[in-house]
Amino acid sequence: MADEVVLLDFWPSPFGIRLRIALAEKGIVPLLLQMNPVHKKIPVLIHNGKPVSESLIALQYIDEVWNHKAPLLPSDSYLRAQARFWADFVDKKIFEIGRKLWATKGEEQNAAKKEFLDCIGVLERELGDKPFFGGDTLGFVDVTLISYYSWFLVYEKFGNFSVEAEHPEYIAWVKRCMEKESVSKSLPEQEKVYDYAMLLRKKLGIE
Amino acid sequence: MADEVVLLDFWPSPFGIRLRIALAEKGIVPLLLQMNPVHKKIPVLIHNGKPVSESLIALQYIDEVWNHKAPLLPSDSYLRAQARFWADFVDKKIFEIGRKLWATKGEEQNAAKKEFLDCIGVLERELGDKPFFGGDTLGFVDVTLISYYSWFLVYEKFGNFSVEAEHPEYIAWVKRCMEKESVSKSLPEQEKVYDYAMLLRKKLGIE
Repeated sequence: MADEVVLLDFWPSPFGIRLRIALAEKGIVPLLLQMNPVHKKIPVLIHNGKPVSESLIALQYIDEVWNHKAPLLPSDSYLRAQARFWADFVDKKIFEIGRKLWATKGEEQNAAKKEFLDCIGVLERELGDKPFFGGDTLGFVDVTLISYYSWFLVYEKFGNFSVEAEHPEYIAWVKRCMEKESVSKSLPEQEKVYDYAMLLRKKLGIE
Repeated sequence: MADEVVLLDFWPSPFGIRLRIALAEKGIVPLLLQMNPVHKKIPVLIHNGKPVSESLIALQYIDEVWNHKAPLLPSDSYLRAQARFWADFVDKKIFEIGRKLWATKGEEQNAAKKEFLDCIGVLERELGDKPFFGGDTLGFVDVTLISYYSWFLVYEKFGNFSVEAEHPEYIAWVKRCMEKESVSKSLPEQEKVYDYAMLLRKKLGIE
Protein backbone atom coordinates (compact mmCIF):
# COMPACT_ATOMS: atom_id res chain seq x y z
CA MET A 1 0.00 0.00 0.00
CA ALA A 2 1.32 3.44 -0.90
CA ASP A 3 1.59 5.88 1.98
CA GLU A 4 -1.26 8.35 2.23
CA VAL A 5 0.03 11.54 3.81
CA VAL A 6 -2.29 14.44 4.58
CA LEU A 7 -1.23 17.67 6.24
CA LEU A 8 -3.88 19.83 7.86
CA ASP A 9 -2.18 23.15 7.59
CA PHE A 10 -2.58 26.91 7.62
CA TRP A 11 -0.19 28.60 5.20
CA PRO A 12 1.51 31.23 7.47
CA SER A 13 1.99 28.82 10.40
CA PRO A 14 5.66 28.17 11.27
CA PHE A 15 4.49 24.89 12.80
CA GLY A 16 3.02 23.74 9.48
CA ILE A 17 5.91 25.13 7.42
CA ARG A 18 8.43 22.95 9.25
CA LEU A 19 6.45 19.80 8.48
CA ARG A 20 6.31 20.77 4.80
CA ILE A 21 10.11 21.19 4.84
CA ALA A 22 10.67 17.86 6.58
CA LEU A 23 8.36 16.00 4.19
CA ALA A 24 10.11 17.64 1.22
CA GLU A 25 13.49 16.55 2.64
CA LYS A 26 12.14 13.02 2.81
CA GLY A 27 10.75 13.20 -0.71
CA ILE A 28 7.14 12.85 0.47
CA VAL A 29 4.38 14.89 -1.20
CA PRO A 30 1.49 15.34 1.21
CA LEU A 31 -2.04 16.32 0.37
CA LEU A 32 -2.25 19.82 1.86
CA LEU A 33 -5.55 20.84 3.39
CA GLN A 34 -5.84 24.44 4.56
CA MET A 35 -7.65 24.77 7.88
CA ASN A 36 -8.73 27.83 9.75
CA PRO A 37 -6.84 27.63 13.05
CA VAL A 38 -9.70 29.39 14.81
CA HIS A 39 -11.64 26.17 14.48
CA LYS A 40 -8.98 23.49 14.64
CA LYS A 41 -5.52 23.10 16.09
CA ILE A 42 -2.97 22.81 13.29
CA PRO A 43 -0.82 21.32 12.00
CA VAL A 44 -2.00 17.74 12.08
CA LEU A 45 -0.13 15.13 10.07
CA ILE A 46 -2.37 12.25 9.04
CA HIS A 47 -0.45 9.20 7.93
CA ASN A 48 -2.56 6.37 6.54
CA GLY A 49 -5.53 7.67 8.50
CA LYS A 50 -3.70 8.09 11.80
CA PRO A 51 -3.27 11.65 13.15
CA VAL A 52 -0.13 13.03 14.78
CA SER A 53 -0.41 16.41 16.54
CA GLU A 54 2.19 18.87 17.88
CA SER A 55 4.71 19.87 15.25
CA LEU A 56 7.91 18.81 17.03
CA ILE A 57 6.38 15.41 17.75
CA ALA A 58 5.25 15.13 14.11
CA LEU A 59 8.78 16.09 12.97
CA GLN A 60 10.22 13.22 15.00
CA TYR A 61 7.54 10.90 13.63
CA ILE A 62 8.44 11.87 10.05
CA ASP A 63 12.12 11.33 10.82
CA GLU A 64 11.48 7.88 12.30
CA VAL A 65 9.08 6.62 9.62
CA TRP A 66 10.95 7.90 6.55
CA ASN A 67 14.41 7.08 7.83
CA HIS A 68 15.85 6.07 4.44
CA LYS A 69 17.10 9.59 3.66
CA ALA A 70 17.87 13.03 5.08
CA PRO A 71 18.02 12.15 8.82
CA LEU A 72 16.94 15.14 10.92
CA LEU A 73 17.99 13.92 14.37
CA PRO A 74 21.57 12.69 14.89
CA SER A 75 22.10 9.04 15.83
CA ASP A 76 24.08 9.83 19.00
CA SER A 77 21.78 10.03 22.04
CA TYR A 78 23.49 13.03 23.59
CA LEU A 79 23.40 15.00 20.35
CA ARG A 80 19.73 14.00 19.96
CA ALA A 81 18.99 15.38 23.44
CA GLN A 82 20.81 18.60 22.52
CA ALA A 83 18.85 18.95 19.27
CA ARG A 84 15.58 18.38 21.13
CA PHE A 85 16.62 20.95 23.73
CA TRP A 86 17.32 23.66 21.14
CA ALA A 87 14.15 22.97 19.15
CA ASP A 88 12.19 23.25 22.38
CA PHE A 89 14.06 26.47 23.24
CA VAL A 90 13.15 27.94 19.84
CA ASP A 91 9.46 27.20 20.26
CA LYS A 92 9.33 28.43 23.85
CA LYS A 93 10.85 31.76 22.76
CA ILE A 94 10.37 32.90 19.17
CA PHE A 95 6.62 32.55 18.61
CA GLU A 96 5.57 34.44 21.74
CA ILE A 97 8.28 37.12 21.52
CA GLY A 98 7.45 37.55 17.83
CA ARG A 99 3.76 37.95 18.63
CA LYS A 100 4.61 40.70 21.09
CA LEU A 101 6.53 42.51 18.36
CA TRP A 102 3.52 42.89 16.07
CA ALA A 103 0.61 42.71 18.53
CA THR A 104 1.74 45.03 21.34
CA LYS A 105 3.00 48.59 21.69
CA GLY A 106 5.19 50.80 23.86
CA GLU A 107 7.18 49.20 26.64
CA GLU A 108 6.01 45.65 26.03
CA GLN A 109 6.99 45.94 22.37
CA ASN A 110 10.34 47.49 23.27
CA ALA A 111 11.11 44.71 25.75
CA ALA A 112 10.20 42.17 23.05
CA LYS A 113 12.62 43.81 20.62
CA LYS A 114 15.53 43.37 23.03
CA GLU A 115 14.43 39.85 23.92
CA PHE A 116 14.14 38.89 20.26
CA LEU A 117 17.60 40.07 19.32
CA ASP A 118 19.10 38.49 22.46
CA CYS A 119 17.48 35.22 21.52
CA ILE A 120 18.81 35.35 17.96
CA GLY A 121 22.24 36.08 19.48
CA VAL A 122 22.02 32.97 21.69
CA LEU A 123 21.08 30.88 18.66
CA GLU A 124 23.89 32.40 16.59
CA ARG A 125 26.39 31.41 19.28
CA GLU A 126 24.97 27.89 19.44
CA LEU A 127 25.37 27.63 15.64
CA GLY A 128 29.00 28.75 15.94
CA ASP A 129 31.13 27.80 12.96
CA LYS A 130 28.89 25.01 11.74
CA PRO A 131 27.07 25.51 8.42
CA PHE A 132 23.86 24.16 10.01
CA PHE A 133 22.68 23.47 13.56
CA GLY A 134 22.62 19.85 12.41
CA GLY A 135 26.30 20.09 11.41
CA ASP A 136 27.01 19.72 7.71
CA THR A 137 23.39 19.05 6.82
CA LEU A 138 19.99 20.50 7.60
CA GLY A 139 18.77 18.97 10.86
CA PHE A 140 16.00 19.02 13.45
CA VAL A 141 16.85 22.47 14.86
CA ASP A 142 17.35 24.00 11.39
CA VAL A 143 13.94 22.84 10.19
CA THR A 144 12.29 24.02 13.41
CA LEU A 145 13.92 27.45 13.38
CA ILE A 146 13.91 28.38 9.68
CA SER A 147 10.11 28.02 9.68
CA TYR A 148 9.90 31.41 11.45
CA TYR A 149 11.81 33.21 8.71
CA SER A 150 8.65 34.02 6.75
CA TRP A 151 7.67 36.20 9.73
CA PHE A 152 10.96 38.13 9.90
CA LEU A 153 9.70 41.08 7.81
CA VAL A 154 6.82 41.41 10.30
CA TYR A 155 9.17 41.22 13.28
CA GLU A 156 11.65 43.66 11.73
CA LYS A 157 9.10 46.25 10.60
CA PHE A 158 7.20 46.36 13.88
CA GLY A 159 10.33 46.01 16.00
CA ASN A 160 12.18 48.55 13.85
CA PHE A 161 15.42 46.59 13.60
CA SER A 162 17.40 44.64 11.04
CA VAL A 163 18.46 41.10 11.98
CA GLU A 164 21.11 41.20 9.25
CA ALA A 165 22.67 44.35 10.74
CA GLU A 166 22.71 42.92 14.26
CA HIS A 167 23.35 39.25 13.56
CA PRO A 168 24.89 38.76 10.09
CA GLU A 169 25.96 35.17 10.86
CA TYR A 170 22.36 34.26 11.54
CA ILE A 171 21.31 35.60 8.14
CA ALA A 172 24.22 33.75 6.51
CA TRP A 173 22.71 30.58 8.00
CA VAL A 174 19.25 31.59 6.67
CA LYS A 175 20.74 31.93 3.18
CA ARG A 176 22.34 28.49 3.38
CA CYS A 177 18.95 27.06 4.35
CA MET A 178 17.19 28.92 1.53
CA GLU A 179 19.54 27.35 -1.03
CA LYS A 180 17.68 24.13 -0.37
CA GLU A 181 14.53 23.70 -2.42
CA SER A 182 12.83 21.88 0.47
CA VAL A 183 13.09 25.15 2.42
CA SER A 184 12.65 27.86 -0.22
CA LYS A 185 9.56 26.17 -1.69
CA SER A 186 7.95 25.65 1.74
CA LEU A 187 8.34 29.18 3.11
CA PRO A 188 5.60 31.66 2.17
CA GLU A 189 6.79 35.08 1.00
CA GLN A 190 7.52 37.55 3.77
CA GLU A 191 5.37 40.23 2.10
CA LYS A 192 2.36 37.92 2.04
CA VAL A 193 2.83 37.12 5.75
CA TYR A 194 3.21 40.84 6.44
CA ASP A 195 -0.15 41.54 4.80
CA TYR A 196 -1.67 38.75 6.84
CA ALA A 197 -0.24 40.23 10.08
CA MET A 198 -1.72 43.62 9.15
CA LEU A 199 -5.09 41.96 8.69
CA LEU A 200 -4.76 40.23 12.07
CA ARG A 201 -3.89 43.54 13.74
CA LYS A 202 -7.03 45.10 12.31
CA LYS A 203 -9.15 42.18 13.47
CA LEU A 204 -7.64 42.43 16.95
CA GLY A 205 -8.28 46.18 16.99
CA ILE A 206 -4.59 47.17 17.26
CA GLU A 207 -3.62 50.46 15.68
CA MET B 1 34.59 3.39 32.57
CA ALA B 2 31.60 3.16 34.90
CA ASP B 3 28.83 5.63 34.20
CA GLU B 4 28.79 8.68 36.41
CA VAL B 5 25.24 9.92 36.79
CA VAL B 6 24.42 13.08 38.73
CA LEU B 7 20.93 14.51 39.13
CA LEU B 8 20.59 18.16 40.09
CA ASP B 9 17.25 18.00 41.78
CA PHE B 10 14.85 19.68 44.18
CA TRP B 11 12.87 17.15 46.20
CA PRO B 12 9.24 18.30 45.60
CA SER B 13 9.71 18.84 41.85
CA PRO B 14 7.58 16.54 39.67
CA PHE B 15 10.15 17.10 36.93
CA GLY B 16 12.94 15.70 39.12
CA ILE B 17 10.76 12.91 40.56
CA ARG B 18 10.13 11.46 37.10
CA LEU B 19 13.86 11.22 36.38
CA ARG B 20 14.41 9.45 39.69
CA ILE B 21 11.69 6.94 38.73
CA ALA B 22 13.14 6.39 35.26
CA LEU B 23 16.67 5.89 36.60
CA ALA B 24 15.33 3.44 39.23
CA GLU B 25 13.51 1.52 36.48
CA LYS B 26 16.81 1.28 34.61
CA GLY B 27 18.68 0.20 37.75
CA ILE B 28 20.84 3.34 37.81
CA VAL B 29 21.66 5.02 41.11
CA PRO B 30 22.43 8.71 40.54
CA LEU B 31 24.23 11.04 42.87
CA LEU B 32 21.42 13.37 43.97
CA LEU B 33 22.32 17.00 44.51
CA GLN B 34 19.60 19.23 45.91
CA MET B 35 19.48 22.65 44.28
CA ASN B 36 17.42 25.66 45.10
CA PRO B 37 15.33 26.24 41.96
CA VAL B 38 15.32 29.98 42.64
CA HIS B 39 18.93 30.00 41.54
CA LYS B 40 19.11 27.21 38.97
CA LYS B 41 16.77 25.51 36.60
CA ILE B 42 16.20 21.92 37.68
CA PRO B 43 16.32 19.06 37.02
CA VAL B 44 19.54 18.62 35.14
CA LEU B 45 20.83 15.14 34.44
CA ILE B 46 24.61 15.04 34.16
CA HIS B 47 25.90 11.90 32.51
CA ASN B 48 29.68 11.51 32.47
CA GLY B 49 30.02 15.27 32.78
CA LYS B 50 27.53 16.14 30.05
CA PRO B 51 24.33 17.96 31.07
CA VAL B 52 20.84 17.24 29.75
CA SER B 53 18.10 19.73 30.58
CA GLU B 54 14.29 19.61 30.28
CA SER B 55 12.80 16.60 32.03
CA LEU B 56 10.94 15.04 29.07
CA ILE B 57 14.10 15.31 26.97
CA ALA B 58 16.15 13.80 29.81
CA LEU B 59 13.59 10.97 30.11
CA GLN B 60 14.07 10.13 26.44
CA TYR B 61 17.83 10.34 26.87
CA ILE B 62 17.69 7.88 29.79
CA ASP B 63 15.50 5.56 27.75
CA GLU B 64 17.88 5.65 24.77
CA VAL B 65 21.13 5.26 26.72
CA TRP B 66 20.00 2.54 29.12
CA ASN B 67 17.98 0.57 26.63
CA HIS B 68 18.84 -2.86 28.04
CA LYS B 69 15.81 -2.95 30.35
CA ALA B 70 12.44 -1.35 31.16
CA PRO B 71 11.79 0.49 27.86
CA LEU B 72 9.72 3.61 28.46
CA LEU B 73 8.82 4.52 24.89
CA PRO B 74 7.27 1.89 22.63
CA SER B 75 9.21 0.73 19.58
CA ASP B 76 6.41 1.54 17.11
CA SER B 77 6.78 5.08 15.73
CA TYR B 78 3.08 5.90 15.87
CA LEU B 79 2.77 4.73 19.47
CA ARG B 80 5.93 6.72 20.31
CA ALA B 81 4.33 9.85 18.85
CA GLN B 82 1.18 9.18 20.88
CA ALA B 83 3.20 8.72 24.09
CA ARG B 84 5.10 11.96 23.41
CA PHE B 85 1.81 13.74 22.75
CA TRP B 86 0.26 12.68 26.05
CA ALA B 87 3.39 13.43 28.09
CA ASP B 88 3.43 16.90 26.52
CA PHE B 89 -0.31 17.26 27.25
CA VAL B 90 0.29 16.37 30.91
CA ASP B 91 3.02 18.97 31.31
CA LYS B 92 1.11 21.69 29.48
CA LYS B 93 -1.86 21.17 31.82
CA ILE B 94 -1.24 19.73 35.29
CA PHE B 95 1.56 21.92 36.66
CA GLU B 96 -0.09 25.25 35.87
CA ILE B 97 -3.64 24.18 36.78
CA GLY B 98 -2.26 22.69 40.00
CA ARG B 99 -0.45 25.92 40.82
CA LYS B 100 -3.69 27.82 40.42
CA LEU B 101 -5.34 25.47 42.92
CA TRP B 102 -2.96 26.33 45.75
CA ALA B 103 -1.76 29.83 44.76
CA THR B 104 -5.01 31.58 43.77
CA LYS B 105 -8.41 32.20 45.28
CA GLY B 106 -12.04 32.78 44.36
CA GLU B 107 -13.06 32.49 40.73
CA GLU B 108 -9.61 31.63 39.39
CA GLN B 109 -9.28 28.82 41.92
CA ASN B 110 -12.79 27.58 41.15
CA ALA B 111 -12.11 27.53 37.43
CA ALA B 112 -8.88 25.60 38.11
CA LYS B 113 -10.81 23.01 40.13
CA LYS B 114 -13.11 22.26 37.19
CA GLU B 115 -10.21 22.30 34.76
CA PHE B 116 -8.19 19.93 36.93
CA LEU B 117 -10.94 17.34 37.26
CA ASP B 118 -11.76 17.62 33.53
CA CYS B 119 -8.13 17.01 32.74
CA ILE B 120 -7.95 13.94 35.00
CA GLY B 121 -11.11 12.72 33.26
CA VAL B 122 -9.49 13.08 29.83
CA LEU B 123 -6.45 11.13 31.06
CA GLU B 124 -8.66 8.46 32.62
CA ARG B 125 -10.41 7.96 29.26
CA GLU B 126 -7.05 7.77 27.47
CA LEU B 127 -5.94 5.09 29.96
CA GLY B 128 -9.14 3.13 29.27
CA ASP B 129 -8.91 -0.56 30.21
CA LYS B 130 -5.13 -0.72 30.11
CA PRO B 131 -3.25 -1.27 33.40
CA PHE B 132 -0.78 1.48 32.43
CA PHE B 133 -0.66 4.21 29.79
CA GLY B 134 2.29 2.24 28.46
CA GLY B 135 0.10 -0.89 28.16
CA ASP B 136 1.08 -3.79 30.43
CA THR B 137 4.13 -2.00 31.80
CA LEU B 138 5.03 1.40 33.18
CA GLY B 139 5.85 3.69 30.26
CA PHE B 140 6.78 7.23 29.28
CA VAL B 141 3.36 8.74 30.07
CA ASP B 142 3.05 6.85 33.36
CA VAL B 143 6.41 8.10 34.61
CA THR B 144 5.62 11.65 33.50
CA LEU B 145 2.16 11.74 35.10
CA ILE B 146 2.68 9.84 38.36
CA SER B 147 5.34 12.39 39.33
CA TYR B 148 2.54 14.85 40.17
CA TYR B 149 0.89 12.49 42.65
CA SER B 150 2.94 13.83 45.57
CA TRP B 151 1.09 17.12 45.02
CA PHE B 152 -2.39 15.61 45.04
CA LEU B 153 -3.03 16.31 48.74
CA VAL B 154 -2.20 19.97 48.03
CA TYR B 155 -4.51 20.04 45.01
CA GLU B 156 -7.32 18.24 46.84
CA LYS B 157 -7.18 20.32 50.03
CA PHE B 158 -7.06 23.68 48.31
CA GLY B 159 -9.47 22.62 45.56
CA ASN B 160 -11.77 20.95 48.09
CA PHE B 161 -12.36 17.79 46.07
CA SER B 162 -11.47 14.12 46.13
CA VAL B 163 -9.92 12.66 42.98
CA GLU B 164 -10.82 9.16 44.19
CA ALA B 165 -14.50 10.12 44.53
CA GLU B 166 -14.61 11.72 41.07
CA HIS B 167 -12.19 9.50 39.16
CA PRO B 168 -11.74 6.13 40.92
CA GLU B 169 -10.15 4.51 37.85
CA TYR B 170 -7.42 7.14 37.93
CA ILE B 171 -6.64 6.31 41.55
CA ALA B 172 -6.66 2.59 40.71
CA TRP B 173 -3.92 3.41 38.16
CA VAL B 174 -2.02 5.41 40.82
CA LYS B 175 -2.14 2.36 43.12
CA ARG B 176 -0.78 0.10 40.38
CA CYS B 177 2.09 2.55 39.86
CA MET B 178 2.77 2.77 43.60
CA GLU B 179 3.17 -1.01 43.79
CA LYS B 180 6.43 -0.47 41.94
CA GLU B 181 9.38 0.35 44.17
CA SER B 182 10.83 2.63 41.49
CA VAL B 183 7.75 4.82 41.96
CA SER B 184 6.95 4.54 45.67
CA LYS B 185 10.55 5.20 46.69
CA SER B 186 10.86 8.21 44.36
CA LEU B 187 7.70 10.07 45.39
CA PRO B 188 7.99 12.34 48.44
CA GLU B 189 5.19 12.04 51.01
CA GLN B 190 2.11 14.10 50.25
CA GLU B 191 2.11 15.60 53.76
CA LYS B 192 5.66 16.84 53.33
CA VAL B 193 4.78 18.46 50.01
CA TYR B 194 1.69 19.98 51.64
CA ASP B 195 3.86 21.60 54.32
CA TYR B 196 6.14 22.90 51.60
CA ALA B 197 3.17 24.39 49.70
CA MET B 198 1.99 26.10 52.90
CA LEU B 199 5.45 27.61 53.28
CA LEU B 200 5.41 28.79 49.67
CA ARG B 201 2.00 30.40 50.17
CA LYS B 202 3.35 32.31 53.15
CA LYS B 203 6.39 33.44 51.19
CA LEU B 204 4.16 34.58 48.34
CA GLY B 205 1.92 36.43 50.79
CA ILE B 206 -1.21 34.37 50.03
CA GLU B 207 -3.66 33.93 52.91
